[in-house]
Amino acid sequence: MKIIEGGVTAPQGFWAAGVAAGIRKKGKKDVALVYSEVPAATAAVYTINKFKAAPLKVTEEHLTNGMAQGMVINSGIANACMGQQGMDAATKMAEMAAEVLKINSTDVVVASTGLIGAPLPLDTLEIGIKEAAEVLSREGGPSAAEAIMTTDLVKKEITVQLEIGGKTVTIGAMAKGSGMIHPNMATMLGFITTDAAVEVQCLKKILKEAVNATFNMITVDGDTSTNDMVVLMANGMANNPVVTMDNQYYEVFQAAITEISVILAKMIAQDGEGATKLIEVKVSGALSLGDARKAALSISSSSLVKSAIFGEDANWGRIVTALGYSGAEVDPDKVDVYIGDLLMAENGTGLSFDEVKASEILAKQEVIITVDLKLGEFEAKAWGCDLSYDYVKINAAYRT
Amino acid sequence: MKIIEGGVTAPQGFWAAGVAAGIRKKGKKDVALVYSEVPAATAAVYTINKFKAAPLKVTEEHLTNGMAQGMVINSGIANACMGQQGMDAATKMAEMAAEVLKINSTDVVVASTGLIGAPLPLDTLEIGIKEAAEVLSREGGPSAAEAIMTTDLVKKEITVQLEIGGKTVTIGAMAKGSGMIHPNMATMLGFITTDAAVEVQCLKKILKEAVNATFNMITVDGDTSTNDMVVLMANGMANNPVVTMDNQYYEVFQAAITEISVILAKMIAQDGEGATKLIEVKVSGALSLGDARKAALSISSSSLVKSAIFGEDANWGRIVTALGYSGAEVDPDKVDVYIGDLLMAENGTGLSFDEVKASEILAKQEVIITVDLKLGEFEAKAWGCDLSYDYVKINAAYRT
Repeated sequence: MKIIEGGVTAPQGFWAAGVAAGIRKKGKKDVALVYSEVPAATAAVYTINKFKAAPLKVTEEHLTNGMAQGMVINSGIANACMGQQGMDAATKMAEMAAEVLKINSTDVVVASTGLIGAPLPLDTLEIGIKEAAEVLSREGGPSAAEAIMTTDLVKKEITVQLEIGGKTVTIGAMAKGSGMIHPNMATMLGFITTDAAVEVQCLKKILKEAVNATFNMITVDGDTSTNDMVVLMANGMANNPVVTMDNQYYEVFQAAITEISVILAKMIAQDGEGATKLIEVKVSGALSLGDARKAALSISSSSLVKSAIFGEDANWGRIVTALGYSGAEVDPDKVDVYIGDLLMAENGTGLSFDEVKASEILAKQEVIITVDLKLGEFEAKAWGCDLSYDYVKINAAYRT
Repeated sequence: MKIIEGGVTAPQGFWAAGVAAGIRKKGKKDVALVYSEVPAATAAVYTINKFKAAPLKVTEEHLTNGMAQGMVINSGIANACMGQQGMDAATKMAEMAAEVLKINSTDVVVASTGLIGAPLPLDTLEIGIKEAAEVLSREGGPSAAEAIMTTDLVKKEITVQLEIGGKTVTIGAMAKGSGMIHPNMATMLGFITTDAAVEVQCLKKILKEAVNATFNMITVDGDTSTNDMVVLMANGMANNPVVTMDNQYYEVFQAAITEISVILAKMIAQDGEGATKLIEVKVSGALSLGDARKAALSISSSSLVKSAIFGEDANWGRIVTALGYSGAEVDPDKVDVYIGDLLMAENGTGLSFDEVKASEILAKQEVIITVDLKLGEFEAKAWGCDLSYDYVKINAAYRT
């Protein structure tokens, strides 16, 4: 497996574009189109928020046959909580994309991100979609990746290559997500394209597993949004032997999709609103995978832990506090806590530690917290970021 | 029922004191003693955090007979996550208080709040306890209320009076809690004293119910601490007919304890670290009380809702988002959302609203959010505060 630069147009047969239609502030790209030369097996994972936005519902419907050939995404307006008007707008958005791409509208994936409860400006959007179609190209990945950003500071793209049955398979991806990021797809959009040939049920399983271990293990502020989804399109143009659940290619392809998802997830956490540091929390020795994940997420989500890391304060008591209310099975007299490689508490009891060394560890851009529950064999990682003044600044007046 | 000024020494027979022993920064009061002239029926509710601090365990043991006569509380050091050393320190703390109060150590309630994982300085504490005993008085309530503060900006005390069987009964209370406040007693301490005569099982039930509707419905940062508890001592010196579960006094006394708890809970939320506004969230029309509480807490805990309120931004989309992931039963097409008395969304769909009126509502010190689920008969209130720059400032370097 090789990690290289590139995004959704890196795999064979994918075209993309991103343009500034005027939905966001003047000059900012806000409409993205992605197109596959041939229909692609397509899987998606959606938010668990009960107020699932209209574009997700429309996409879910379009993907009942497991196939798609295009994607249209806008930033600026989420098209959520708009009732029938929102459903109509999302359907219309798919139709507009289908028209310019000359495909069926049921083969279009629709996604939106931005302000909730405001109407999608369909006229502006249409101009954008037409313009995007005109500049659609095999080099358009970075431009599309820009167009899906909202409060993101950096564009998130990555490409992975691997061999399947003697053929080079390329996986490209772009993502957005900054605030409101939490397990289960919180205002996080991920689009993964590949020229691999993959059986569609297998593709669904692979995406689900990858998302659970990666996108669902990042958190910026604990809010799970109405709009998040991760989509994976596989168009088969690499001519590899088809990946199925039963053959030897399954594992290597799963590993590649998980790897690309880890990279995107960490990019998102690192770019969390106001973030100055990436926090990785590793929980080991759990009685179950569910416990390990709950514990890791609880620690990485704690405002007090996040503030302490921002302040470079080795306040490990907040780590055990977050562990204690995580719902995971814990024996308070067994837990070991590390910040970096420095043991802070052993068997649930605080140790005196080297404050100078702790400060050095906490001064780094990436802080690793390790908690060993010493109860079982399961482990999980979660990623988050510190809580800074800028988080508040960004979110105090998002709408205005 | 009459709400008046005063604290834990307002009811007959209660004495208190607060002194600066030197556990916290120079000059800040950090040790409180409370004493009842006669043994009192005593109930307590404890944190659900699995890392329950030593003082809570010792108190739980001391209250197995439902009686206590004194309370000793320190701020500065939480005496949590200290293993056997912590248990020994908490036991010793009770013994030191028992000695100066001339009561049995098993009749002493022990509480601590502050930094986790550091040893209680027993020598300093002993000096403080002795000093407090010397200045113990019937007017010592305010002084004790000061000594239990940590990052609190204001002292939290209140007194309620009511008639039970022709006798005036007084209930006094003090509380602390600022950051780390979340349902189930997160770093929140509440001490309620009363001269009412109440049967002890009845007292336990009354406290439990009051806590569930009040202290467990406030949130500052979503973190549930290792040290929180609420204690209720009833010494019977008002000579009222004993309140029992079966007589007519039960309801009025329950109402009074709930009322005093609501007032304290709102004081705590209002004084949340860095708070500039109190947020009250009322959820009605829920299918169950549990659903109403989950929904109200989810909204009041959302960092995005809290940041929006700080920024006086009528971003109601974040309210439905928090509702959507709360776990409460919700029909997205039925929900109405109000900010103040302004209807922002009806049947789950955004309305155009008067931005000027919204700004006026959001400019107030207290913002009320109302959500009607229109599914059932249950309702609940939760209280929280906005998320400001100062929250981050306070928590980034708490330890140092």
